[in-house]
Amino acid sequence: MRADATRPIGVFDSGVGGLTVVRALMERLPLESIVYFGDTARVPYGVKSVATIEHFTGQITDFLLQQDVKMLIVACNTMAAVAAHVVAERAGGIPVINVIEAGAQAAVAASPAGRIGVIGTPTTINSNAYAVRMHALDSGVRVYSQACPLFVPLVEEGWLEHPVTRMTAQEYLRPVLAEEVDSLVLGCTHYPLLKPLLRDVVGEGVRLIDSAVTTAELAARCLHAEGLAHVGRRPASYRYVVTDVPLRFQTIGERFLGRSLGLVERIDW
Amino acid sequence: MRADATRPIGVFDSGVGGLTVVRALMERLPLESIVYFGDTARVPYGVKSVATIEHFTGQITDFLLQQDVKMLIVACNTMAAVAAHVVAERAGGIPVINVIEAGAQAAVAASPAGRIGVIGTPTTINSNAYAVRMHALDSGVRVYSQACPLFVPLVEEGWLEHPVTRMTAQEYLRPVLAEEVDSLVLGCTHYPLLKPLLRDVVGEGVRLIDSAVTTAELAARCLHAEGLAHVGRRPASYRYVVTDVPLRFQTIGERFLGRSLGLVERIDW
Repeated sequence: MRADATRPIGVFDSGVGGLTVVRALMERLPLESIVYFGDTARVPYGVKSVATIEHFTGQITDFLLQQDVKMLIVACNTMAAVAAHVVAERAGGIPVINVIEAGAQAAVAASPAGRIGVIGTPTTINSNAYAVRMHALDSGVRVYSQACPLFVPLVEEGWLEHPVTRMTAQEYLRPVLAEEVDSLVLGCTHYPLLKPLLRDVVGEGVRLIDSAVTTAELAARCLHAEGLAHVGRRPASYRYVVTDVPLRFQTIGERFLGRSLGLVERIDW
Repeated sequence: MRADATRPIGVFDSGVGGLTVVRALMERLPLESIVYFGDTARVPYGVKSVATIEHFTGQITDFLLQQDVKMLIVACNTMAAVAAHVVAERAGGIPVINVIEAGAQAAVAASPAGRIGVIGTPTTINSNAYAVRMHALDSGVRVYSQACPLFVPLVEEGWLEHPVTRMTAQEYLRPVLAEEVDSLVLGCTHYPLLKPLLRDVVGEGVRLIDSAVTTAELAARCLHAEGLAHVGRRPASYRYVVTDVPLRFQTIGERFLGRSLGLVERIDW
């Protein structure tokens, strides 16, 4: 396959959450076109088995490769945690970025004392993928993980600053904060929307690592290194493909993206 | 098909929630065998589109008919709300019971002042199925509905008596209670686990209509009316079939069922 820099980046997620990564990509790489795939008929992945997630991940990878993308971004922490190998095996040499790799690199690079907290869905946390990756980058870091299964539904309910969300965050984060972490990785693409509330709960002394921002940064470095960055004048185009009727995706998605989504396509699997 | 009373009852749900109906059936009809189907690979249905839910409902109905069931119970409010016609069309004459029909009948029969609240998932509430059915039974009742999207994740987190759950319930129920309802239909099979907390929040003056209990009651009446009740001495047998690996189903399911689940089978779709 020829390394044509005008081709789009393929970004995928189990649902709407990966749009926080798209938003960060739009800001960091405004010339790049994007095809986004959200598996809204089968969301959420965070509570499904590894075998099921591997199967779904393979299907989505094949679909995006058919769209002739130049890079694949796994914007779903759950897929990155348990099925990154499925994407790599099928990608046929195009670069693959994932949110866990990006978040782990950024956390290890930024942590002053090497005491890092990670929050995510039960599947992401149980996979131990962040801790494994961070230990591979720096065997001296200490990683404290906490599953926060209610954060996704709270974000989707729109209770971003609600007292219920604050109380839930205080309960989930208590054991992590007791370990005196200096950084906290937001290991789920829904969590950037909770950043103001989490900032309050963890206090100013803890850095928040936003895996959407760190993924866009890693994608930018990778595109430049591979000579795949788009430098022409053609305006970027954005496509959104989902597996269920797009109404709910549209409503919630615009909150995630911070702008209008335009046309959302549905495919029938 | 012969009306063989020894055949099992087929009960189905999008996941684990329908086990509250199984529990009520075990208590009300201890001689009846049950095949339970939980679509755990594709749960939750409550946020999916009608077309997707219809498609999934048809698949599950066909599977249970292949198990030679004598009655079908739609134990998922979301499927009952938007896809009851799919089950009825395929059932080929065997009786079909659904949680909405059961809950609506019980609520209308029990309501002293005809002011009835209904809580459920967004899809159930948006379908307006309870209100339509209750108005058909008694055009004089007033129905006040409220979607409670956080209740399912809170129950699955096990926060059945948690302050976060109480605060969430107070917020969701405020507008319904302001209408001075005399009854509240728990229009989701997860909600019976919140009964003690909801009892506190709504106060003693409001009757809670538990759709698991009312469904078991309606099933018992229907089996007797059709001559399908099992009267032999053979002990009841219970089968549980799910679409994802059963670990999480087993863990959460035993809380819903109030007893050990035994063997759970997985089928691969």
